Amino acid sequence: MINKDFNEKCAVVGVFNSKSASQTAYFSLFSMQHRGQEAAGISSSDGKKMHTIKDRGLVTQVFDEVKLATLKGDIAIGHTRYSTAGDDSILDAQPVYARYDLGELAIVHNGNFTNAEPVRKKLIDKGAIFQTHMDTENLIHLIAKSDKTELLDRIMDGVKKVEGAFSLVFSNETQMFAVRDPHGFRPLSLGKISNENGEDGYIVASETCAFDLVGAKFIRDVKAGELLIFEKGKEPKSIQLFEPNPHHCIFEYVYFARPDSTVIGKNVYKLRKEMGRNLAKESPVEADMVVPVPDGGVPSALGYAEESGIPFNMAIMRNHYVGRTFIEPTQKIRDLKVKMKLSPMSEVVGGKRVIVIDDSIVRGTTSRQIVRMLKEAGAKEVHMRISSPPTTHPCYYGVDTPDQEQLIASKSTVSEIAKYIEADSLAYLSNDGLLDSVGRDLNYCQACFTGDFVIEPKE
Amino acid sequence: MINKDFNEKCAVVGVFNSKSASQTAYFSLFSMQHRGQEAAGISSSDGKKMHTIKDRGLVTQVFDEVKLATLKGDIAIGHTRYSTAGDDSILDAQPVYARYDLGELAIVHNGNFTNAEPVRKKLIDKGAIFQTHMDTENLIHLIAKSDKTELLDRIMDGVKKVEGAFSLVFSNETQMFAVRDPHGFRPLSLGKISNENGEDGYIVASETCAFDLVGAKFIRDVKAGELLIFEKGKEPKSIQLFEPNPHHCIFEYVYFARPDSTVIGKNVYKLRKEMGRNLAKESPVEADMVVPVPDGGVPSALGYAEESGIPFNMAIMRNHYVGRTFIEPTQKIRDLKVKMKLSPMSEVVGGKRVIVIDDSIVRGTTSRQIVRMLKEAGAKEVHMRISSPPTTHPCYYGVDTPDQEQLIASKSTVSEIAKYIEADSLAYLSNDGLLDSVGRDLNYCQACFTGDFVIEPKE
Amino acid sequence: MINKDFNEKCAVVGVFNSKSASQTAYFSLFSMQHRGQEAAGISSSDGKKMHTIKDRGLVTQVFDEVKLATLKGDIAIGHTRYSTAGDDSILDAQPVYARYDLGELAIVHNGNFTNAEPVRKKLIDKGAIFQTHMDTENLIHLIAKSDKTELLDRIMDGVKKVEGAFSLVFSNETQMFAVRDPHGFRPLSLGKISNENGEDGYIVASETCAFDLVGAKFIRDVKAGELLIFEKGKEPKSIQLFEPNPHHCIFEYVYFARPDSTVIGKNVYKLRKEMGRNLAKESPVEADMVVPVPDGGVPSALGYAEESGIPFNMAIMRNHYVGRTFIEPTQKIRDLKVKMKLSPMSEVVGGKRVIVIDDSIVRGTTSRQIVRMLKEAGAKEVHMRISSPPTTHPCYYGVDTPDQEQLIASKSTVSEIAKYIEADSLAYLSNDGLLDSVGRDLNYCQACFTGDFVIEPKE
Amino acid sequence: MINKDFNEKCAVVGVFNSKSASQTAYFSLFSMQHRGQEAAGISSSDGKKMHTIKDRGLVTQVFDEVKLATLKGDIAIGHTRYSTAGDDSILDAQPVYARYDLGELAIVHNGNFTNAEPVRKKLIDKGAIFQTHMDTENLIHLIAKSDKTELLDRIMDGVKKVEGAFSLVFSNETQMFAVRDPHGFRPLSLGKISNENGEDGYIVASETCAFDLVGAKFIRDVKAGELLIFEKGKEPKSIQLFEPNPHHCIFEYVYFARPDSTVIGKNVYKLRKEMGRNLAKESPVEADMVVPVPDGGVPSALGYAEESGIPFNMAIMRNHYVGRTFIEPTQKIRDLKVKMKLSPMSEVVGGKRVIVIDDSIVRGTTSRQIVRMLKEAGAKEVHMRISSPPTTHPCYYGVDTPDQEQLIASKSTVSEIAKYIEADSLAYLSNDGLLDSVGRDLNYCQACFTGDFVIEPKE
Repeated sequence: MINKDFNEKCAVVGVFNSKSASQTAYFSLFSMQHRGQEAAGISSSDGKKMHTIKDRGLVTQVFDEVKLATLKGDIAIGHTRYSTAGDDSILDAQPVYARYDLGELAIVHNGNFTNAEPVRKKLIDKGAIFQTHMDTENLIHLIAKSDKTELLDRIMDGVKKVEGAFSLVFSNETQMFAVRDPHGFRPLSLGKISNENGEDGYIVASETCAFDLVGAKFIRDVKAGELLIFEKGKEPKSIQLFEPNPHHCIFEYVYFARPDSTVIGKNVYKLRKEMGRNLAKESPVEADMVVPVPDGGVPSALGYAEESGIPFNMAIMRNHYVGRTFIEPTQKIRDLKVKMKLSPMSEVVGGKRVIVIDDSIVRGTTSRQIVRMLKEAGAKEVHMRISSPPTTHPCYYGVDTPDQEQLIASKSTVSEIAKYIEADSLAYLSNDGLLDSVGRDLNYCQACFTGDFVIEPKE
Repeated sequence: MINKDFNEKCAVVGVFNSKSASQTAYFSLFSMQHRGQEAAGISSSDGKKMHTIKDRGLVTQVFDEVKLATLKGDIAIGHTRYSTAGDDSILDAQPVYARYDLGELAIVHNGNFTNAEPVRKKLIDKGAIFQTHMDTENLIHLIAKSDKTELLDRIMDGVKKVEGAFSLVFSNETQMFAVRDPHGFRPLSLGKISNENGEDGYIVASETCAFDLVGAKFIRDVKAGELLIFEKGKEPKSIQLFEPNPHHCIFEYVYFARPDSTVIGKNVYKLRKEMGRNLAKESPVEADMVVPVPDGGVPSALGYAEESGIPFNMAIMRNHYVGRTFIEPTQKIRDLKVKMKLSPMSEVVGGKRVIVIDDSIVRGTTSRQIVRMLKEAGAKEVHMRISSPPTTHPCYYGVDTPDQEQLIASKSTVSEIAKYIEADSLAYLSNDGLLDSVGRDLNYCQACFTGDFVIEPKE
Repeated sequence: MINKDFNEKCAVVGVFNSKSASQTAYFSLFSMQHRGQEAAGISSSDGKKMHTIKDRGLVTQVFDEVKLATLKGDIAIGHTRYSTAGDDSILDAQPVYARYDLGELAIVHNGNFTNAEPVRKKLIDKGAIFQTHMDTENLIHLIAKSDKTELLDRIMDGVKKVEGAFSLVFSNETQMFAVRDPHGFRPLSLGKISNENGEDGYIVASETCAFDLVGAKFIRDVKAGELLIFEKGKEPKSIQLFEPNPHHCIFEYVYFARPDSTVIGKNVYKLRKEMGRNLAKESPVEADMVVPVPDGGVPSALGYAEESGIPFNMAIMRNHYVGRTFIEPTQKIRDLKVKMKLSPMSEVVGGKRVIVIDDSIVRGTTSRQIVRMLKEAGAKEVHMRISSPPTTHPCYYGVDTPDQEQLIASKSTVSEIAKYIEADSLAYLSNDGLLDSVGRDLNYCQACFTGDFVIEPKE
Repeated sequence: MINKDFNEKCAVVGVFNSKSASQTAYFSLFSMQHRGQEAAGISSSDGKKMHTIKDRGLVTQVFDEVKLATLKGDIAIGHTRYSTAGDDSILDAQPVYARYDLGELAIVHNGNFTNAEPVRKKLIDKGAIFQTHMDTENLIHLIAKSDKTELLDRIMDGVKKVEGAFSLVFSNETQMFAVRDPHGFRPLSLGKISNENGEDGYIVASETCAFDLVGAKFIRDVKAGELLIFEKGKEPKSIQLFEPNPHHCIFEYVYFARPDSTVIGKNVYKLRKEMGRNLAKESPVEADMVVPVPDGGVPSALGYAEESGIPFNMAIMRNHYVGRTFIEPTQKIRDLKVKMKLSPMSEVVGGKRVIVIDDSIVRGTTSRQIVRMLKEAGAKEVHMRISSPPTTHPCYYGVDTPDQEQLIASKSTVSEIAKYIEADSLAYLSNDGLLDSVGRDLNYCQACFTGDFVIEPKE
């Protein structure tokens, strides 16, 4: 009866005490556009009133100078959204905003509540209405229904009732709050910006690449289970809201984060190279060249090439003009959509034994097209190497994955997959190899590879 | 702390048991576009699921064939919205839609709840959150929080808790409901459409002009205080939910409704002519011609001319291409906006004594510009005649009026207004004259002229 | 082999020596939007260089403040275009602009060259290329190929080689010229604008309604066969280029011009009323009311009503929101397009004998739909009266008419037409009656009614 | 008096005898989008009539399925355009289309006529008018004015009168022609497509990457000075129109062409790697890593790294979402535009000696920003290496370069440039090194590096 919620992979940002808060939020969202292209939104607070603009489209499409100028105030929180479906997707953009007994409140959320369904049912049983399809709406209800009198206490109350993955930023008329779930699934970093007044301003963002663009200085990551309170004229105050039990999403390192971001103290690009190195150690193969599937496979292919001593070549070209094309190709020229995006260079791969490196295999259909294109381009052998273990399980913590039965690795052995994608050989990086690459100093969520879910979703 | 709600003047439509429900709703909204140009929306029900599209813009801008095709099902309810303000107006389009414990629900509303503020406060005190600025959101909360198990009972529960003006249409996955408040402030009519199957389909709409366009047959008005229940394979079932105490909005006759609509059994055009006749009887003046301010003043000017025997002339031309112009005129060519819309014909009015007829005066500024343009065009005398009494009070029942202090008639005598608008004379139709025009067989709300509010708004 | 040129009905404007030349041109075009909704364009001259913007769409759609600001300079000429077809219509917007041996040149043209085909053939035989489908392109070739050394002499040369209807405005980097063909088919008026410097500025425009909006003072009409030269610091200089042989388009009075315009010294609204009066004298009929087809038929219906003493009623409502609707109605609700635009009031016409007044009948299909709608609305009798003679011939002088065989009056008698449109009676204003209405002091082109073409088109 | 023409770098395509000619042209243009993002256009021929659509914007923005469907016929020629300026740029999209004495003609052009100015002057002196700012318009005039009776002869006539760089495709109602100038400055390749009928279809395109996408088979390059004639039911006929004197643009290899294209028999990616290798041999430097400026510098950086044995790192991230941003950054966050596009990874370059590889330096400002960003990111040393010789001269053969005085290498020594861009060292590839890289089997135009212009532009 009630629609299944969409899992989202997204970016969040919060800017506090800056004369150009909404502008800074805009540029931050721009730099995190890779985390969500479907919708974007910003809510600002001018001390008395909040202002919200959100719509479908890229950050640069949703906002222009005139619109940003209406988002007045020293506080701004923002969001980019990965994917929506359905008729009324416009309602499913964030920030989620509501008026309630304490005034106004806006929330942005990266992650996914694993108990969204039972919480919503309970709320609905108590008479709550849901006007969007986002699980974030639960939280605003919980805060509104809390019997505490201060927003801070209410946020603590509310956040304790949700489970799963959440990197959240809240704003009311005068304050900002940031929270990270006890497992720290999704990243969230804290930075400092130099306010035009000489005062300190602060920024929290999903990825540090946002800091680089807006000239913010990275301070530290928000800790798993930590709540940060931003109030005018004060340093951010920290409360350890939950006992930390870190399960940092390892897939951020594998695929998700921008290579120039530093996630939990580690540069993504370097880790990816290391994955490639370990992959070369684990699964060597005699070949003439190492070729990445751009852009995701580039760093690990570089690592593989360095380790193996086999020359690296950018022999698959990526066309960045693709966007949304409305021309449906005739049956005659099939597989055109992948071809419009990726084209192998026959002059480079012709007659060669090629190791092609990608970060992951989901359904296997794209991998098969890539192998086929390489063979059509003349490659003598195509050996696919994947810089992560087989993806056998869906993610319940905020990454948009297909159902388990659509994950080819959930039901096929590696050799079956090799056959399906028509590769001469296929190997994945082992779990151990992945951990060696990213470092064993931290604890990770690897559930998409192992099925070890620290929290099970509740129906 | 909580923003003042916007009063709205709008159109609603509901279509039940039609293969082309959303298309019929679309054309109906198109014909009622004069009631609201700011936003439009339709929710359809396909028996299992609801589909909603709403956005800012005219009906023809919000919808196209592709979008209408996604609004599947035999039930569709729709809305056009008059005016919004603020950053987040996109959220303030209707239908208001929510998921709640009984499933899905969509509401469209023409009118205004006079107890919106206390009801919302009470709801907010109980933990409700408000994601829009529309008072209609109250009702969906009340329905969700009712402890009844059937939607029908919940609607009855909810509607009894709101006060003021409401012509409402509700739809869930399989049913449709229409309700009119006990005073019947805003119009709502019932019609029959011939379903493509030979079965009967039904339509409710704010104005009968919608029926004419879609080929529906007018059955009767929904009665003040009546609830209609539409269920598949049944005649609409009527419940007299409230003791009727009719106070039909007399301003629908004066200005609001389309002249070809029949409101509570009376053709609007004819009544407006009658207003003009009575105005001529009450306030004759020696002059050379009667000139309407188009388009609103045309029928009453015709009546005035017929009664007085003074020739009628369309001597003020209206330009319909105006739309939204983005060119701000230089100081040099002031008052351009009114001039772009209305232009008097100097060849016709030059040297003449002109009686200019309009339906009402709000702030007086437009009237003054009209008088000035006529004088610049050479009119020797300009006598303004208004086909309604002085508008002295704002409307609390769904017409968007400025605050009382901005209503020129609230603080100025007729002779002071005449002076302000620079007319040689000014007269309004009396209350008696207005009642004579529209007929004393019904009971009307004339609060905007008299201040006799049958329900006071509650803070 | 070479496509047939499109006949155009359009508006032209030229503004000389004004600090806000392009803005004044913009507002002038806006007020003449009724003469062409398909495309719009302005070329300005800043003394050294010309700037052009043109595109499909309404004036308010093609231009905005930013674009107008790029159209620098004290001279601006502009155009709105009626109708185009074909793939490349964007090229067929005006001004026509070219670089040639004397520098830059832009032309706007209302009218139609009757010798376009042979002139183009001759030009093409000499090696000219044609990049648009507009006959105006001929003229720019003729000017470029003239062996005179001054633009003025070249314009005189060129204009003498074209035949037919032309109200033209030319501009180069520093000068402006206006020309009207010897027959004066299409209107063109001269006005004065007060330059911000206290100097005199000038404006020429197709209709005087443009002057009213921009605050220009009407001086006089450009004379048939006259050439006006505008140069900085001088009064406009007049050259009588052709022996005048006036054949002013009588259809401007019947239908084309805005009722508040003064065309060749005569107010259009007044003449239309007079047509109605004469129509009533010529073709009276016993009836209960006179009803115009809005907006065109309003003034003549007023005249008919005044003369006959039969009451006038605006009993057909016109919906101005129509625009371009993209929803194709199902077969079920046929004739929807006319119904979306016009709706008769059954409450007013029901049981009545109605005289319906329109300005002309082209194919007869719309008239038939109007008669049918009135009958469906309950009219007992429908008598159609047309305020002009039967349109039996196409126009070669700049009005976009269908081919002769599509003109119902070219092949059917009045009684046959009455039968076709299902009217109880039908009468047209006689040629004499039309001449009585507009005044016999001028000489008119009535070829669309008589077939007396003062110039035959040349193939 | 007459505006300077724009030099253009563009792509052309021609498709002959294909049921999906315009669709194939569309996809071809899409794959060559990197050669011009400003405007796009296609003209098709259906055997009797030509159809043209062109507009500003990317290929995917100008066309959709509905528009492509109107471009009927078995022949289609298309164009993407690099850069335009001025008010009326819409007129400056290609194909250039005209009607003339032999019927219809459309032309697309990659290159630049070096005698455009004197030819135009001569044409203008003979009375020609120019409606665009494109030198291609000259050619259509020359063809129209030729006294030959066949288009083929006229094309030969016309093409012999223009000088400079031209890869041209012509189409009339039934034929297609392709011509390459005697120096073969700009590339043009011939391919075969399998017509749906089993007949042979043909394609000519600026780059072979177009063939790969649409499934065409590369046949050979069009030869310098060759004219190809495409007629129904025949093999393409070749005429050696000019004595070939090949001066293939070496800059296509350095920067212009897509790395997966094969230009005059040589794969671009491979040559670029070779340039990097030779650059490493010529200008080694002790460092920790080789870093490309993406995307242009990637292949040569790979070559440099392979040759030098210094590790390669993609340590500058490129953001592909940039598009057109309308938000002007405040003064505070300067240089934001480059930062929005390129971001160096401090974690990778921090404390390192970096060799940064780019393909060329034009003004030096971007290079300076890159060096600065690397240093801000912590690079200890930044050594810039350029995979081509200093760009000292503008191009007259179809590449859009700034004026000579803006080329930093035209007035500064390498050490001065190094200082200006704040690099620790700077070296360019030598002319010899470049020739070694691309192969001395062909003759190249290297005028931008040497000033040896085989044809001087004529004023």
